[in-house]
Amino acid sequence: MSQTIELIPGNTLITATPEEGRQLAVKMSRLIIKATQPDAAVRERLRGVYAEDPTMLIAIGHTVAAEFATIAAANNYWR
Amino acid sequence: MSQTIELIPGNTLITATPEEGRQLAVKMSRLIIKATQPDAAVRERLRGVYAEDPTMLIAIGHTVAAEFATIAAANNYWR
Amino acid sequence: MSQTIELIPGNTLITATPEEGRQLAVKMSRLIIKATQPDAAVRERLRGVYAEDPTMLIAIGHTVAAEFATIAAANNYWR
Amino acid sequence: MSQTIELIPGNTLITATPEEGRQLAVKMSRLIIKATQPDAAVRERLRGVYAEDPTMLIAIGHTVAAEFATIAAANNYWR
Amino acid sequence: MSQTIELIPGNTLITATPEEGRQLAVKMSRLIIKATQPDAAVRERLRGVYAEDPTMLIAIGHTVAAEFATIAAANNYWR
Amino acid sequence: MSQTIELIPGNTLITATPEEGRQLAVKMSRLIIKATQPDAAVRERLRGVYAEDPTMLIAIGHTVAAEFATIAAANNYWR
Repeated sequence: MSQTIELIPGNTLITATPEEGRQLAVKMSRLIIKATQPDAAVRERLRGVYAEDPTMLIAIGHTVAAEFATIAAANNYWR
Repeated sequence: MSQTIELIPGNTLITATPEEGRQLAVKMSRLIIKATQPDAAVRERLRGVYAEDPTMLIAIGHTVAAEFATIAAANNYWR
Repeated sequence: MSQTIELIPGNTLITATPEEGRQLAVKMSRLIIKATQPDAAVRERLRGVYAEDPTMLIAIGHTVAAEFATIAAANNYWR
Repeated sequence: MSQTIELIPGNTLITATPEEGRQLAVKMSRLIIKATQPDAAVRERLRGVYAEDPTMLIAIGHTVAAEFATIAAANNYWR
Repeated sequence: MSQTIELIPGNTLITATPEEGRQLAVKMSRLIIKATQPDAAVRERLRGVYAEDPTMLIAIGHTVAAEFATIAAANNYWR
Repeated sequence: MSQTIELIPGNTLITATPEEGRQLAVKMSRLIIKATQPDAAVRERLRGVYAEDPTMLIAIGHTVAAEFATIAAANNYWR
């Protein structure tokens, strides 16, 4: 993995709103894939695969849910 | 992902009841899929696939469970 | 998803006993599948598939475990 | 699912030791499979399948881990 | 499952260090597989399969992560 | 598993920043794979497989999310 890729934008889990926290969850899950497959052309090709595959789309959703759980706890659920 | 798609309706995890929290979990998991596959026609076609596939239906259930865990904690379990 | 399907029977996560909490976990996981595939005939056909497939049975177990974790926390583990 | 199957032996998550808690996690995960596939002959046949399949064995381990997490929390980790 | 297999070495989740906690997570996940497939010769054969299969290796990692989450919480994260 | 492989670099879950915590999550998930498949040549070959497979990349992301959840909690979310 390229150590030069930033894994957490802004280097914080704290966000102003749940919506921003959700966006961060999406970004964090994508950055792991980017770090594992740094070639943008390959990632673009794979995007065409998973965007049409329901099993993969569901798995992406599950992964984002896991990231979001951590972010939501960090923000005390924006209560 | 299109940044114009709202990922959390109402921008809050707080709901009046467990039932509404469960509905939010379903919506949030669907919005991630929508953000990943913005083409409504493709999503409609994929729906016909996963709605008949038990493995995918179970995986959807698992994903909703993960989202709901976060929402339930946010609402202090509606105790 | 049909909005007329009740997703959480009784609209509460609180149960009198762990056994009832476990039953609720099973019901909640099934209701997500019901909401995603409202056709009872299709669900009945799929039941014949997953009840004979060890991978699917294990995945069902994992999903119920996730739902139960939330219910158990809601009930302070019935301590 | 047959409502006559007991899903949590003893109707409690509290155990005297971590070892007993772990055994309970195994039992609880098996009882969900039993409730979903009540036919003992079918379960015995499927056992011959998953006991030789590494993917399924790993998935069983993941499911038990999820059940155990809840049981361990219920017992305040036997600290 | 053979009831004679010890599922948690030492019958405690408490360890002196994170490293030992991680080793315990690995052992606990393996003991579930051992309990499910008590035949050492079969397990040895399956090891040759999963050690060369990236999907299975990733799934093992996910399972260990789940076990470790519980152990880490039990030890108050060794703070 | 080779007992000589260090599973948690630095033998602590505490990190100075979320970014470092995320890097630790990636390392910890990789070290489990390394411990399970100690042959570097095999791991290098498998890397060529999973780096081009969207399902595996998503599964890696899910695993890292699980490790990170524990690390984030250990660090009180760097609040």
